[in-house]
Amino acid sequence: MLEELKQKVLRANLQLVKNKLVLFTWGNVSEIDRETKLIVIKPSGVSYDEMKAEDMVVVDLNGKVVEGDLRPSSDTPTHIEFYKAFPNVGGVTHTHSTFATAWAQAGRDIPFYGTTHADYFYGDIPCARSLTQEEIEGEYEKNTGLVIIDRFKKGKIDPMEVPGVLIKSHGVFAFGKDGDNSVYNATVLEEVAKMAFLTEQINPDVPRADKFMMEKHYQRKHGKNAYYGQKK
Amino acid sequence: MLEELKQKVLRANLQLVKNKLVLFTWGNVSEIDRETKLIVIKPSGVSYDEMKAEDMVVVDLNGKVVEGDLRPSSDTPTHIEFYKAFPNVGGVTHTHSTFATAWAQAGRDIPFYGTTHADYFYGDIPCARSLTQEEIEGEYEKNTGLVIIDRFKKGKIDPMEVPGVLIKSHGVFAFGKDGDNSVYNATVLEEVAKMAFLTEQINPDVPRADKFMMEKHYQRKHGKNAYYGQKK
Amino acid sequence: MLEELKQKVLRANLQLVKNKLVLFTWGNVSEIDRETKLIVIKPSGVSYDEMKAEDMVVVDLNGKVVEGDLRPSSDTPTHIEFYKAFPNVGGVTHTHSTFATAWAQAGRDIPFYGTTHADYFYGDIPCARSLTQEEIEGEYEKNTGLVIIDRFKKGKIDPMEVPGVLIKSHGVFAFGKDGDNSVYNATVLEEVAKMAFLTEQINPDVPRADKFMMEKHYQRKHGKNAYYGQKK
Amino acid sequence: MLEELKQKVLRANLQLVKNKLVLFTWGNVSEIDRETKLIVIKPSGVSYDEMKAEDMVVVDLNGKVVEGDLRPSSDTPTHIEFYKAFPNVGGVTHTHSTFATAWAQAGRDIPFYGTTHADYFYGDIPCARSLTQEEIEGEYEKNTGLVIIDRFKKGKIDPMEVPGVLIKSHGVFAFGKDGDNSVYNATVLEEVAKMAFLTEQINPDVPRADKFMMEKHYQRKHGKNAYYGQKK
Repeated sequence: MLEELKQKVLRANLQLVKNKLVLFTWGNVSEIDRETKLIVIKPSGVSYDEMKAEDMVVVDLNGKVVEGDLRPSSDTPTHIEFYKAFPNVGGVTHTHSTFATAWAQAGRDIPFYGTTHADYFYGDIPCARSLTQEEIEGEYEKNTGLVIIDRFKKGKIDPMEVPGVLIKSHGVFAFGKDGDNSVYNATVLEEVAKMAFLTEQINPDVPRADKFMMEKHYQRKHGKNAYYGQKK
Repeated sequence: MLEELKQKVLRANLQLVKNKLVLFTWGNVSEIDRETKLIVIKPSGVSYDEMKAEDMVVVDLNGKVVEGDLRPSSDTPTHIEFYKAFPNVGGVTHTHSTFATAWAQAGRDIPFYGTTHADYFYGDIPCARSLTQEEIEGEYEKNTGLVIIDRFKKGKIDPMEVPGVLIKSHGVFAFGKDGDNSVYNATVLEEVAKMAFLTEQINPDVPRADKFMMEKHYQRKHGKNAYYGQKK
Repeated sequence: MLEELKQKVLRANLQLVKNKLVLFTWGNVSEIDRETKLIVIKPSGVSYDEMKAEDMVVVDLNGKVVEGDLRPSSDTPTHIEFYKAFPNVGGVTHTHSTFATAWAQAGRDIPFYGTTHADYFYGDIPCARSLTQEEIEGEYEKNTGLVIIDRFKKGKIDPMEVPGVLIKSHGVFAFGKDGDNSVYNATVLEEVAKMAFLTEQINPDVPRADKFMMEKHYQRKHGKNAYYGQKK
Repeated sequence: MLEELKQKVLRANLQLVKNKLVLFTWGNVSEIDRETKLIVIKPSGVSYDEMKAEDMVVVDLNGKVVEGDLRPSSDTPTHIEFYKAFPNVGGVTHTHSTFATAWAQAGRDIPFYGTTHADYFYGDIPCARSLTQEEIEGEYEKNTGLVIIDRFKKGKIDPMEVPGVLIKSHGVFAFGKDGDNSVYNATVLEEVAKMAFLTEQINPDVPRADKFMMEKHYQRKHGKNAYYGQKK
C-alpha cells in the first residue's frame, strides 16, 4: 500500500539529517496522497539510522492507523489539521532546527530582511502564539495545528506563499507541494533565521527590506512570469 | 571482569567525539554496575583515537583501582560522589562542550525557554556555585561532586528529571540511567545551551516558557502515560 | 566551443559547494574569454550534484545564448555589466554566503579591522545601495550591476584591489582574474565578514585598523615588490 | 638533512587543516633543532593539499635558507625572534583562526573565565599592541616578534606557561615544546577564544574566575605534582 510514497517519505525524512535540521529523532516529515486521502508519516521516536521504508506509518485524516506496525509520530494530529485546512499543501515537515527554534523561543516573527528570504517566503515568517493551558492539557497536538491555522487565516497568509511558521516556545513547521519540498522549505527557513539573527546583531536598527524587492524576487521564482530555473 | 561493560563504556566515550562534545581528551564517561558496586571509567588523558576497551579502568566506590593498567580519569572522585548520592543514576558524563561551558563560565542557570528543553529537563538547568579556595585546595574533584549534590538536594531537584548540571567557571556533568544515556543528555544539554543563548540574543527580554507546557512535554515523554516513541 | 573553459567554470562552481558558500542552487560563477568576448556561466537553478561541463552556457556580451541547451543563470545580465565596465575582471562569483549576506542585509560596508582583510581587500568592502522601485521593476539584474559599478566609480575603487562587494538586502558579488580566483575572493570575503561581526561583538567601540598596516599587508601580497608566496 | 624533522613539521602543518585553524594557506608551523640551531618551516603560500616533506625549508637563526628550493614562510623572521628570545620554545604556530583573530582585531586580552583556559594558559592570553608605522615599514615581520616578546618580558609572562598570544589587528602565535605541541596550543586557544566570546554574550558583567582555581587547574596538569594523564 502506497509503497512508492513510503520510499519517498523515508528519503525526505533522511534529508532532514543530511541538511542538519535534526538531532536524534527530533523531526518528522509526512506527505499526503490526495486521491486516497491517506497520509504517510515517520514513526515516533525511531532512530534515522535504522529507519526503513516499511516503518513508515499510513494514517487517514481521522488519525486512524491504516497500515504499519509502529506508532506514528506524536505530531501526527498537527499534520492532519494542516492537510484538512490547506488543500494545496502536499507535505509537512516539523523540526527543532537551531536558529529557527531560537526565534520561536524568542516569540518573534522573522522579519523580511532580504532576497534570500523573499525567494521563498512572501512576507515575514509568522510566529504563532503559545497555546493556553486548556489547549495544552486538551488535544495538544491537534490544537497546535489549529493555533497555527488560525494565524494564517487571520493574517490572510497563504501557506504555499509563506511555506513555514514558528510556534512560540516550540519549533518549526514547514509546508510544501510534497514531503521533499517541505524539507526544502524547512532548510531555507533555518538559513533565513540564521541570517536574520546576524543581520540584527550587525545593525540593531535595521528596517525591513523594500516591499517591491520582495515582490520582484518572489515573483521571478514563483509568479506567472517566473524566469528563474529551467522551463518545465 | 566486566568485559561487556568496558565495551559499552568505550562506545559511550567515543560517542562524545561523534557528537562533537569534546576536543582532544576533554571529557569522560563512566557507568556503574550496581550489583558489584564497581564503576568502569575512561583512563585519564588518553586520546580517543587509540582508546581500546581494555584501557577502561575499574574502580570501586572508594576510588580504589580494581582492574586496569592505566590511571582512571582525574574526575573519578566526582563521578563516585554522584553514584553514592543518587541511587538511580547509572551513568555519568563530563564535558567542556562549547555552549554549555560558556553558560557555566557566565555563572548562570539555563532558563527553560521551550519544548526542546522540556522534552528532557524538567526545569532550569542549574549552575552550581564555584568552589571556595578551601574546597579547591582540598579534595578538589570530590568537593566538585559535593557542591553539585548540595545544589540538587537544596533545590529538591531529582537528577533523573533534570539530568544535567553546570558548575561555575568549569563545565558540564550529565546523568543517565547508563553511560550512553548520560552522553545523550549531555548532547541535548549542549543544543539547549546554544538555543538559549540565541533566544536571549534575539529577544533580550524573553520570559521563561509556561510551566504547563513544561509539564506537558516532559510528561508525554517521561510520565506514567507517556505516548512519545514506541511501546516497550 | 570553449570546452576547456566550460570544464574550468564547472570546477569553479563546484568549489562554491566545497567552500560552503552556497545552499542548494544559490550561487553562480562565470568566466570571460576576452579574445572571443564570450562568457561561460552556470545554468539557472540546476543542482550542483548533477551539473556537467556541457550544461555550462555560453553567452555573448549582449546576453545572447551562443551555445547551450539550458537557460543561463538569471544573474547573467549582472555579470555582463561587470565584464563591460571592468576590463581587468576575468571571473565573477555571486553568492548568498551567510555572514556576508547578513552584512548586506544590515546595509553596512565591512570595515577594515585587520590583516586577514588587508591581505585581499585594499579598503572597506563596500555595500552598494538598494535599488529603487523603478530599477527593480525595470531591467533588474542589469541594474544591479549598474548600481554596483556606480559605487566603485564614485568611490574610485578598483575592483581588482577590492575584489568583492555587497548589495543591500541581497548578497555578494566577488571578482577575480578568472572564475577560480573570484571564488577564492568570495571565500575570503565570507571569512572576513564573520571575523568583522565577531570583532564588533567583542569590542563594540573598535576603530578601523591602521591605514599603514593595510598598505603593508596588501602590498606584500599584491604590490610591485610582493614577497609573499613563491616566485612565478 | 633533518629529514625526520621535515616529516614532523609537515604533519604539524597538516594538523592545522584538520583542526580547522586555517583557510587556504593562512598559517604556518615551524620547529627548531636546538642542537644544530636550524629551523624547519613551511614554505610560503603553498597549498596544504600539495605540500610534501621535501618542500619544508631549513633556515638558520639569521634567516638564511640552508636547504630547500622554495621560499620559507614570509613570517619566518617572527618565528626566529621567538626562538632567539625564548630558549624553552621548540615550536611555533601562526594562524588567523576565526575567534582568536576576532579578539586580536578587537584589541583585547582574552580574560581567564574558566578551567578550559586554566588547563593550558596560566593567566589571561595577552594581545600585544599594534605596530607603529615605523615598525611596519621597517623589518615588519621581525618587529612583530619583538613587540610580542616585549609584552611577555614586561608582563613577566613565561611563554611556556602562557603558550599563546594575539597581536592587535592581525592574528595568533602559539608556542610549544615542539611544532605539534604549538599546534595543540593554537587549537586550545581558538576554543578558549570562542568560549570567552560566548561567556561575555551570556553575561556581560562576568568577572574573571578565581585565581586559586587557575592555580589548581594549571598545576594539576603542568605542576610538579601533576596528576592528570598517565605517568611518563
